[in-house]
Amino acid sequence: MNRKIYNFSAGPAILPQEVLEKAQRELLSFDGIGMSVMEISHRSKAFADVLERAESGIRDLLNVPHDYRVLFLQGGASLQFSMIPMNFLKARADYIVTGAWGNKAAKEARKTGPVNVIHSTEQSGFKTIPSQDEIRFSPDADYVHYCSNETIDGVEFNYDLEGGGIPVVCDASSNILSKPIDIEKYALIYAGAQKNIGPSGVTLVIIRDDMLGKVPEGQYSMLDYRAIAANDSMLNTPNTWGIYLVSLVCDWLGQKGGVAEIARLNARKAQILYDALDSSDGFYRGHADRDARSLMNVTFRLPSEHLETRFVAEATAAGFNGLKGHRSVGGIRASIYNAFPIEGVERLVEFMKEFNR
Amino acid sequence: MNRKIYNFSAGPAILPQEVLEKAQRELLSFDGIGMSVMEISHRSKAFADVLERAESGIRDLLNVPHDYRVLFLQGGASLQFSMIPMNFLKARADYIVTGAWGNKAAKEARKTGPVNVIHSTEQSGFKTIPSQDEIRFSPDADYVHYCSNETIDGVEFNYDLEGGGIPVVCDASSNILSKPIDIEKYALIYAGAQKNIGPSGVTLVIIRDDMLGKVPEGQYSMLDYRAIAANDSMLNTPNTWGIYLVSLVCDWLGQKGGVAEIARLNARKAQILYDALDSSDGFYRGHADRDARSLMNVTFRLPSEHLETRFVAEATAAGFNGLKGHRSVGGIRASIYNAFPIEGVERLVEFMKEFNR
Repeated sequence: MNRKIYNFSAGPAILPQEVLEKAQRELLSFDGIGMSVMEISHRSKAFADVLERAESGIRDLLNVPHDYRVLFLQGGASLQFSMIPMNFLKARADYIVTGAWGNKAAKEARKTGPVNVIHSTEQSGFKTIPSQDEIRFSPDADYVHYCSNETIDGVEFNYDLEGGGIPVVCDASSNILSKPIDIEKYALIYAGAQKNIGPSGVTLVIIRDDMLGKVPEGQYSMLDYRAIAANDSMLNTPNTWGIYLVSLVCDWLGQKGGVAEIARLNARKAQILYDALDSSDGFYRGHADRDARSLMNVTFRLPSEHLETRFVAEATAAGFNGLKGHRSVGGIRASIYNAFPIEGVERLVEFMKEFNR
Repeated sequence: MNRKIYNFSAGPAILPQEVLEKAQRELLSFDGIGMSVMEISHRSKAFADVLERAESGIRDLLNVPHDYRVLFLQGGASLQFSMIPMNFLKARADYIVTGAWGNKAAKEARKTGPVNVIHSTEQSGFKTIPSQDEIRFSPDADYVHYCSNETIDGVEFNYDLEGGGIPVVCDASSNILSKPIDIEKYALIYAGAQKNIGPSGVTLVIIRDDMLGKVPEGQYSMLDYRAIAANDSMLNTPNTWGIYLVSLVCDWLGQKGGVAEIARLNARKAQILYDALDSSDGFYRGHADRDARSLMNVTFRLPSEHLETRFVAEATAAGFNGLKGHRSVGGIRASIYNAFPIEGVERLVEFMKEFNR
């Protein structure tokens, strides 16, 4: 099986080799039951165990307090962009916009009610992250929303936002499980699975109990966090295969030492790549300001679009996949999520030096 | 690999052995690219091909006309229960209720606006299906909704409803692809994948172009059929693994001779089982009236709940899985979807005769 590709895809992204191998081994007969995990009732004992392992895996890895629910939904982070205001925006919501995804979330929230963009870095090209001191909340905000890592722009919050009295809602799609976070700072934290958690088609939502009481009466069932929580993520048939993969990824990450250990590795991987940019005499120019740099998505430019096109073509031919920047911003993007091996970063840096020559 | 289980699960349900084997073979390297289909960008050429094969597979099997879109969503049929009224209920919607799912759909629609249940078989215990002549539509109905096969109750429409001038919306989750249908009779037909199409986590929506023009302005993006169609099911990251499985199931069904051929086989399977009920001198009593019987979900009772419990226990021990009726109605339910082998039905009938003795 040729797996000698270095997969820098921004998402869906590389999954741990051991996880894929286990999923392959038991694809036809899960845990010896003679049926695939895809073929069994979501109400069966076998699947209840899978769901329980996925939930407790997330709880253990992120040290989720008891007054929070861990839910698995569908529709990706994009559906959360709608569900959050539908459930919680009454008077006004504050949005911090540091990239394309935060922007989309704010735009979607405006369909429900008043949105106050209390900080936006759009004018300066989404290169920076505000410090806590720079954030001023609206006094009547129902919540404040931000995206902790902007996949397209490559900027990342290196701290957990403090909302004061305002519930903090965070889109952590592309950096959750990459480092320790303080869940207690958040009222709701959510993530599409397809970067660090599992395959696409699963959305992780961690929500504080008190938020469930705020869901308006008459909410659509499938868009109602309270109903979903009351039914333990099984208001209807969940993405059973996706949740199974989540359970395997949690097992894998636990065996690797958990988020504290993977955070050290992620920092090293990013350091190697950013050092290569910084020591290239301006040939490779990082997009983000230094103190806003993402450890997950390293975005950079070359001196010309022509060179960028050539870079991507030659890199692809050399076995480095998925390096083309998002179509909306161009340039190069190397996504180096949890499952991406450090050797791949080292090989890419060698390639970059060679290409520069 | 022990696969000697006969899997009568109502959904998620049995998948074709050949499909699972192919998915297993290429789980680590899809089509020789060195990456899993779960690890590649949904915007990659490789995944574009997968999506195209899934769509054209559905189009070919169901003979979908050119003025219909074939879409793959998330959230299951249950999210459609909300999306349909959110997008199309303006003055009033007609609902035909012949079982638990139709009931849920109507209940959800009431959150949007006036619902007229123009026919309900609830009083008589969901044992019957109305004939076309019995249906009288509201003159101002925006659409009429019905569920063509009720999984829990085991009743099935054996004809495509004619709406006259009223757009027909159909939940075909549990019988789509089981027999030829006339798509042109429908404005929108939808199905959770986890019975006849693929694994859970994918929802198939076939929608006539003119319906897209009816979506209200300001609709939430992920709940907006027009936006999803305009983005070819990739408004955001879809369930890539699920869609891949759909493409494999379509290939498999095509090789089996398509829906016309599988319909013949499904009719034979159901006949064998219903004959066993009818020739049991009342020991096994079918739930549905004869002319309303589902070819997908065969529901029946035994003389006592005690015997039903024993039946399920002994059947399970003998390798017949998933026969317990839905918790809301009790009894026995044998789900015999496309991928369920005729030998399994024959073996079950032998077991039933033995158990009766």
